[in-house]
Amino acid sequence: MNIARHELQINCRGRGCYNITHDVSAWLATTGVRDGLLNLFVRHTSCSLMVQENADPDVLADMERFLSRLVPDGDPAFLHRSEGADDMPAHIRMALTQVSLTLPIASGRLALGVWQGVYLYEHRYEPMLRRVWLQAIGQ
Amino acid sequence: MNIARHELQINCRGRGCYNITHDVSAWLATTGVRDGLLNLFVRHTSCSLMVQENADPDVLADMERFLSRLVPDGDPAFLHRSEGADDMPAHIRMALTQVSLTLPIASGRLALGVWQGVYLYEHRYEPMLRRVWLQAIGQ
Amino acid sequence: MNIARHELQINCRGRGCYNITHDVSAWLATTGVRDGLLNLFVRHTSCSLMVQENADPDVLADMERFLSRLVPDGDPAFLHRSEGADDMPAHIRMALTQVSLTLPIASGRLALGVWQGVYLYEHRYEPMLRRVWLQAIGQ
Repeated sequence: MNIARHELQINCRGRGCYNITHDVSAWLATTGVRDGLLNLFVRHTSCSLMVQENADPDVLADMERFLSRLVPDGDPAFLHRSEGADDMPAHIRMALTQVSLTLPIASGRLALGVWQGVYLYEHRYEPMLRRVWLQAIGQ
Repeated sequence: MNIARHELQINCRGRGCYNITHDVSAWLATTGVRDGLLNLFVRHTSCSLMVQENADPDVLADMERFLSRLVPDGDPAFLHRSEGADDMPAHIRMALTQVSLTLPIASGRLALGVWQGVYLYEHRYEPMLRRVWLQAIGQ
Repeated sequence: MNIARHELQINCRGRGCYNITHDVSAWLATTGVRDGLLNLFVRHTSCSLMVQENADPDVLADMERFLSRLVPDGDPAFLHRSEGADDMPAHIRMALTQVSLTLPIASGRLALGVWQGVYLYEHRYEPMLRRVWLQAIGQ
C-alpha cells in the first residue's frame, strides 16, 4: 500500500470559488499512486469543497447568488457574529457543502468527469490563506 | 491490498431518485473485498448521490418537493440556463447533496443500515445515461 | 494494510448536535493506524454527521435555527409524517448534511483543524440510541 500526503495552500482573495483541480492533479502525478482514492480535507470551518461544472463561469456566480439568498449575511436570527455579517453564514455554507471529498484515482490520474472541477469555496469576505490536506491511498 | 473498480451505468428516465443499492451490492459481491471502503462517484454535474430511507416512496416524493421549492426551476436569478429551466437548479441540487460517497464494507457486504438505500438522484428532466464509478479498496 | 472497525453508540437526548470527536479519537488511538483514512458512517436516515466549529455553542444553536427555518417541522407539503412532525424534516436534514465522512489520519491522530469538531446531528425530537460505524484504513 502506498500513502502520500500533501498540504495545499490557497491564497483566497475573498468569497468565491477557487479551482484547485490543476494543483491537486499536479501533486497526485508526483505520488506514484496509480489506483486508489484521493481524499481532500479542509482544516477550516468557514470554507469548503465543491465539485462543480467547470466550463461556464455563470454557474459559479449563480451558485453564489443562490447561497447568498439561502443563507443571508447579517441575518438577525444568528447570535454568532463576532467576526462579522459573514461569520455564521460561512459556517452554515460549509455544512451544506463538503468539508471532505473522496475521489477515485485511476491510471495515476484523478478520475473526474470532463465537466467536473474541484473547487475550494471561500465563504468569508476577507482574504484568507486556506489549507487543504490531500491524501492519496492505493497502489 | 485489493482494489476493484466498476462503472455502473444507469438509464435515467428523467428527474427523480433511482435505487442503485442492488446493483452496487451485486457488483461488490464479485470483487472479493471483505473489509474496507466502497467509494461511489458520479462523473456528472447535474445528478448526484444520496443515501435515503428505502421503505416509503413518499419520502423520495417529499424530498423532491422540498428541493423543487428550495431551488426553483427557471429562477430568473440564474444566468446559466443554456440547457433549460432545470439546468442551473441541477448544478445546485448536486452541490447540496453528494457527488461522492464512501461507505464501509464488512464481511463482503455493503454495511448499510436496514432502512438505508443508495440512490442516484437525477436532477434533469430529460432521460440521461449516467455513469457511477464504484471502487472497492480493502482486503 | 491495517483495517480496524468499531461501532460507536451515542445516547441522544433529542434534537441537537453531539460532539463525538473525543470518542472517535480515543478509539482511533487503540487501532495502531498511523497514516490513512478514517471513515464515519451513520446507519440511520434521520440523523447525520457534521464537522462544525467547536468553540462557540452559539454556532450549533444558529445552525439548528437555520435548519429549522429551512425545513419546517410539520410542513403541510410533506406526505411522509407517520412518525410525527419531525419525521420527513429529519430525512431532508440528513440529506443536506452528511451520512458519511472520510477524514485523514496522520501520526496516529485524526487530523482535524484546531476549530473543527465532529458532531452527530440528531434530527428527531425523541431520545434515540444512534450507531456510528468507524473504520480506519491505512498503515
